[in-house]
Amino acid sequence: MKFELQLLGTNGALPAHGRFPTQQVLQVHHKQFLIDCGEGLQMQLDQSQARPGHIQTICISHEHGDHILGLPGLLSSWALNTREKPVDIYGPPAVGDFLKAFQHLFQHFPYAINFNPVESSAPSIIYEDQLLQITAFPLRHRVPTYGYLFREQPQPRRMLKSAIERYRIPFAAIPGIKNGQGYHSTEDGYIPNDELTAPPPRPRSYAFCSDTAYHEPLAEWLAGTDLIYHEATFSERHKEQARKTMHATASQAAQIALLAGARQLVIGHYSPRYRTPDRLLYEACAVFPNTFLGADGMIVPLLYQ
Amino acid sequence: MKFELQLLGTNGALPAHGRFPTQQVLQVHHKQFLIDCGEGLQMQLDQSQARPGHIQTICISHEHGDHILGLPGLLSSWALNTREKPVDIYGPPAVGDFLKAFQHLFQHFPYAINFNPVESSAPSIIYEDQLLQITAFPLRHRVPTYGYLFREQPQPRRMLKSAIERYRIPFAAIPGIKNGQGYHSTEDGYIPNDELTAPPPRPRSYAFCSDTAYHEPLAEWLAGTDLIYHEATFSERHKEQARKTMHATASQAAQIALLAGARQLVIGHYSPRYRTPDRLLYEACAVFPNTFLGADGMIVPLLYQ
Repeated sequence: MKFELQLLGTNGALPAHGRFPTQQVLQVHHKQFLIDCGEGLQMQLDQSQARPGHIQTICISHEHGDHILGLPGLLSSWALNTREKPVDIYGPPAVGDFLKAFQHLFQHFPYAINFNPVESSAPSIIYEDQLLQITAFPLRHRVPTYGYLFREQPQPRRMLKSAIERYRIPFAAIPGIKNGQGYHSTEDGYIPNDELTAPPPRPRSYAFCSDTAYHEPLAEWLAGTDLIYHEATFSERHKEQARKTMHATASQAAQIALLAGARQLVIGHYSPRYRTPDRLLYEACAVFPNTFLGADGMIVPLLYQ
Repeated sequence: MKFELQLLGTNGALPAHGRFPTQQVLQVHHKQFLIDCGEGLQMQLDQSQARPGHIQTICISHEHGDHILGLPGLLSSWALNTREKPVDIYGPPAVGDFLKAFQHLFQHFPYAINFNPVESSAPSIIYEDQLLQITAFPLRHRVPTYGYLFREQPQPRRMLKSAIERYRIPFAAIPGIKNGQGYHSTEDGYIPNDELTAPPPRPRSYAFCSDTAYHEPLAEWLAGTDLIYHEATFSERHKEQARKTMHATASQAAQIALLAGARQLVIGHYSPRYRTPDRLLYEACAVFPNTFLGADGMIVPLLYQ
């Protein structure tokens, strides 16, 4: 099952050096989830693997322009394309105010725009289906801001091909075995489930953390996450600037990944002062070696471990 | 004196094939004028020759999203950059409503946003300075829409170097001669102005026409314009679609340029159905041979003829 992140914009508030503001698309099996919608989203989606018409769920971190100004264009284009499927948008209440003002101006939407306000001082599950659970968790920024943790649902145990052959198990018995039952073989008697199946793969998970100052509770909330995206607006040299604007440095992002025991860290939301953000990578790797630099268009597949 | 157009977005309403929605910047000497502000404007400006912080005048054709959704990002970034210089925005009243709603949401603007409504059933001058005159003229579209004609101010006659040498004309006498006076030479007597000067170059002009159905009055209003940008959303094959949506075909755009006696025509606002719009070029050239295909990033210098 596909579980794949594509970064569509990795620059901070002021777009520069060809980098777009924050926008991502996460594909989980056949479903696509948009995460933040910086300006230029439609053009980036058009160049991506995503199929924009199929998107049904959008998670927005906060109300700042570089995270929401791509929404009106996308929502308008869907209207022009006579979309009928509703779209669900999650985000802090100010994002709802923005949507309301925009809907009032543009008026004709042939589909429903359902806004679901996110307001919580602790992690809370906001979405759940057969494939996936999404948890929103508070970040520490100048306005109410939320991160999102996407976690695959646990899968059933995997049927062993060798057991099917050995005990001549009929097709009809397989679903029950996958759900934990044993099997009564006429030749071999009762075979317990753990001889017929292997444990399921560990559910994969991705956490999006932007924008935020260093916020230590993240380490606990994101413990064991496979991939963390954490903003890294500044280098150590501009630590004071990070503190004032409530953004993170690259090494602070890495510190969160380290404390959370994440498998991988990808950084982004670079200040326009960094034409190439390699110094951010070196600073992060000194703390958490399995860090890589996010770049516009980059695809990050999450594989089973 | 520089008089140079740069196209930053040449696609129609739905961005596609890497083409951005309508956005242009016209540089006249040291001044820059933005014409329409489709989504992604900041990223396109960043890749252009323009110096966004120096822009003071913006002309908007109409309220449709693909012509205005780049405004909020630019205005917000100017606020982040603590701009103090005011900005003047011209456009039909609905554009003012959009700006008002946006200003209400974002609130903190350290500079003035002056909106000047354009409402007129005939061409009317909306802006004038020492370099340039801008005339707004109505187009024919589904909502009130205006085109803009940028015309250089007439320049004084040019002093002939040969005359300065021949009659030993002192520096102090030159401004008067440029304004039409003759010169009293102690050796040669009175020399009339037309022996001392050459006629000024013909003022250069650029007209922006998008979005619009075929609208014959344009031919008269834009008579003798050097360069016309005219939308060409559709090919002849989709003429009926053009009629229904109040857009133009490539050959209709060319017909306007022909009737106006323009020097050059550049087309754009292509429907996303055209991956490469060459068929539009062939159709336009059959009517008006001096047509070229607009492309994102293209620079069109207007030279004196």
